[in-house]
Amino acid sequence: MSHRFFADATSVSGDRATLRGAAARQIARVLRLRPGDTITLVVDVTDSELVLDTVSAREVGGRIIRRSPSRGEPRFALTLALPVLRGDRSEEVIESVTQLGVWRIAPFVSVRSVARNLSAARHQRWERIAHEAAETARRGRAPSIDPLRDWRSLLVALPSPVLVAWEEERERRLRDAFPSGPSGSLVIGPEGGLSGDEIALARDRGAVTVSLGRRRLRSETAAIAAVAELLGALD
Amino acid sequence: MSHRFFADATSVSGDRATLRGAAARQIARVLRLRPGDTITLVVDVTDSELVLDTVSAREVGGRIIRRSPSRGEPRFALTLALPVLRGDRSEEVIESVTQLGVWRIAPFVSVRSVARNLSAARHQRWERIAHEAAETARRGRAPSIDPLRDWRSLLVALPSPVLVAWEEERERRLRDAFPSGPSGSLVIGPEGGLSGDEIALARDRGAVTVSLGRRRLRSETAAIAAVAELLGALD
Repeated sequence: MSHRFFADATSVSGDRATLRGAAARQIARVLRLRPGDTITLVVDVTDSELVLDTVSAREVGGRIIRRSPSRGEPRFALTLALPVLRGDRSEEVIESVTQLGVWRIAPFVSVRSVARNLSAARHQRWERIAHEAAETARRGRAPSIDPLRDWRSLLVALPSPVLVAWEEERERRLRDAFPSGPSGSLVIGPEGGLSGDEIALARDRGAVTVSLGRRRLRSETAAIAAVAELLGALD
Repeated sequence: MSHRFFADATSVSGDRATLRGAAARQIARVLRLRPGDTITLVVDVTDSELVLDTVSAREVGGRIIRRSPSRGEPRFALTLALPVLRGDRSEEVIESVTQLGVWRIAPFVSVRSVARNLSAARHQRWERIAHEAAETARRGRAPSIDPLRDWRSLLVALPSPVLVAWEEERERRLRDAFPSGPSGSLVIGPEGGLSGDEIALARDRGAVTVSLGRRRLRSETAAIAAVAELLGALD
């Protein structure tokens, strides 16, 4: 199987493609590929097979000989709203949910959040982790990472339908609320849980609370488990 | 909600219960509970409400005033066969799958395993992680951790039906193979994947291979996602 590289649309012009920066360095210096070798270029859910003709650490060029839709994308476009978690727990979640096929990640803080900031450097690290995890998982794109929002702005930004995992919901299981359309959102609460006021505001805006079962889950486990259950059923 | 402590059957005699060791120290020194306070004692899937009458760091005693079945146990008893993973990745998986409700964890090495040992100290650490995660998740028991086995011994030890997650399986999804009985096993492969010979041996013994989807998952993500999907559907 050939090496996969994500690229943006500006890398491609007709049947020619050009890579610079980290991808060019990796192809020339780390993988030591040569003219005549083939790589897969992934641009927005399309795989392009590229035969290299020029290879240097500064610039790699080649000709596209075949295009096909990326096979690794789920049919359901899931936005995951994820609280900023302590330590590197958010990073672990981002890696796992990217492998599982999340479309977009929307970080937020809520009243009981312990971690309340997302520095520019950490936001960039999240994008890099998502990028690398998507390449490794053989996906057709990396999930985008939204800017940090507070609860009210988050509710405005999330695509409908919005499911909110809430440990005080006793009746409606996640599997009873699987969306029937092509897209939707799932919200996971922070370490301290979501407040009653936050739940009320979400319901006012049409969100639906769901239970992830009778056991109490850490936020990281809840995020990975809920995404797996939802995309496992809808994909 | 009262504090929960796991105990073994020898702690209970009629309507009296006695705790020593770490639990007694935590009750007396850390939580600073006193005679008259109530805790929940969890013994093999039964919750016992205990009114303390003697509290010291050496020994805590009390009277059981109510017993009820633990609510946190799934109906399906799932044995998870988990390769020993590098670094502390096994530990992360054990914590998450314990929260999700796994019944028993069976560690193994296979031909492509990178990590090949499980020291007595690390086995004990796994038991401690499982114990603490089960208490936090409000379960009725902690999963047992088997001794380390090789592939052949593992296949003999696992309860049927046995589902093996395999990335070369293209047809049968996990959700197409959910067991209908009260128990069964799920096998996750190591970093390098399971070999063709190992899959053949497993099939000879009646195991069924299943796909976790078109994306390539790390072993940790695969374990948590598959357990979530299976127990989410069967619980």
